[in-house]
Amino acid sequence: MKMALIGVGLIGGSFARAAKGAGKFDRIIGFDIQSEALRRALELGVIDDIALSAAHAVANADLVMIATPIGSIRDVLSEIAAHLPDTAIITDVASAKASVIETASEQLGVAFSRFVPGHPIAGSEHSGVERSDAMLFRGNTCVTTPVAQTGSDALEGIESLWRDVGCVVKRMTPQEHDRVFAAVSHLPHLIAFALVANIASQSDADRKFEMAGPGFRDFTRIARSSASLWSDICVSNRAAIGDQLRGNRRLLEELQRALDEGDAETLRRVFQQAGVALDRRVNAE
Amino acid sequence: MKMALIGVGLIGGSFARAAKGAGKFDRIIGFDIQSEALRRALELGVIDDIALSAAHAVANADLVMIATPIGSIRDVLSEIAAHLPDTAIITDVASAKASVIETASEQLGVAFSRFVPGHPIAGSEHSGVERSDAMLFRGNTCVTTPVAQTGSDALEGIESLWRDVGCVVKRMTPQEHDRVFAAVSHLPHLIAFALVANIASQSDADRKFEMAGPGFRDFTRIARSSASLWSDICVSNRAAIGDQLRGNRRLLEELQRALDEGDAETLRRVFQQAGVALDRRVNAE
Repeated sequence: MKMALIGVGLIGGSFARAAKGAGKFDRIIGFDIQSEALRRALELGVIDDIALSAAHAVANADLVMIATPIGSIRDVLSEIAAHLPDTAIITDVASAKASVIETASEQLGVAFSRFVPGHPIAGSEHSGVERSDAMLFRGNTCVTTPVAQTGSDALEGIESLWRDVGCVVKRMTPQEHDRVFAAVSHLPHLIAFALVANIASQSDADRKFEMAGPGFRDFTRIARSSASLWSDICVSNRAAIGDQLRGNRRLLEELQRALDEGDAETLRRVFQQAGVALDRRVNAE
Repeated sequence: MKMALIGVGLIGGSFARAAKGAGKFDRIIGFDIQSEALRRALELGVIDDIALSAAHAVANADLVMIATPIGSIRDVLSEIAAHLPDTAIITDVASAKASVIETASEQLGVAFSRFVPGHPIAGSEHSGVERSDAMLFRGNTCVTTPVAQTGSDALEGIESLWRDVGCVVKRMTPQEHDRVFAAVSHLPHLIAFALVANIASQSDADRKFEMAGPGFRDFTRIARSSASLWSDICVSNRAAIGDQLRGNRRLLEELQRALDEGDAETLRRVFQQAGVALDRRVNAE
């Protein structure tokens, strides 16, 4: 079995290591527009061969995994579409699904039935193939978001692979996926970036950052993620994130009023709602 | 030497353990309005004796540490003022300083010159004397915020104690302190609480929390802190937090517009500002 890996970063590299370790592929051929990343992936043994282009990589592939930043998926699909073997299964790992599915439907033609949208809930503020780890997915969730056209063999094949690398697989509709992750991942990133950027714009920013404690470090860890990756994710899922942000801003407006009026009761009520929800969540785990 | 500890929680309990370990006090007498906490503190050996009231606790004390939640400081000062020995040094550990200093100035009369405002940058989302730890302050910063009336012997005595328990002491004006911590501690708490509360108010909240990954957990850890403690801190430092929140909301409004218009460039620019600032900070450490 041959796998083509387009995009040899943390997620793609970790999947390649884990799937090879599980004996699922004899040969993994990689492509990345960053030739340095590609060279490192080969050196590290994450891939067995380097392709000259995405189109070359997919020749004779049984599985094509697109693990580039979400902003590059359209170009990759457009480039590989005409070169895909008739039986190849295609999948991706992007953090927003409806927009990727729409793009895949436009670009892939009949091969769209063999496209399985996926999103492993793993990774961190780190990136790059150097950080790739066969254990990255172990015990984590991978969400698949099939649509009516998704073939059941392709879907079950991909879900089985994610299980082989240690994931619990959950199916969701693309819309539910995008709503859920807008709330618990995309908006938190946007808000952490905004909090740090707002401090950075102040004249005494250095003093403020110097005095920040461990709570600040935890809160802003996700703001160390790639700015261009996350701006592309935000645009790809802009409707759902926009909805979440609108609700959030209404609540912040209420809290601003409470601060201005010294209304501790409103602050306490909102803070308690959060605490109760987090306690429920911890108890459910 | 005798210390009176009013408020036997995580911070007060940890200071008591550490200061006793460093041989600074022969006897620590505690008081807390929660009699259960007081009993636990005695059982754990954090305090040597229980006082019947804050006023009783301060009799013959060389040091009075007020380590209650910030919302109780006025009542404590009012109760102990008439009972303070003429030479006792008084200090606190609250997260907002200007409002506490104003209260102390009103309540303490001539003893105000022996009041040293302090804020150890330690602790976590956990609380309670059970979590107290003599090593909590080791390597952390303690900020003192003296004013014109603060006596230099009292100030140096308190700073020396914080060094004895392992802190690096930094002096700031109360205004600078409150501005800095509004930005890097108080507003992040308010925003983390608001993010979680906003999700909790949605009909599919359970599904959303269920799918949250490790980034969400880090981002929202501070929202597990005490709601009533933090609403009191927010009200105590409401002017500085209000200013930070206003700037933050302006930036979120700009990001909302960028989302609505699919303007990846603005999102990327703001996200990059944050990344650059955090990189500078890590490099400075």
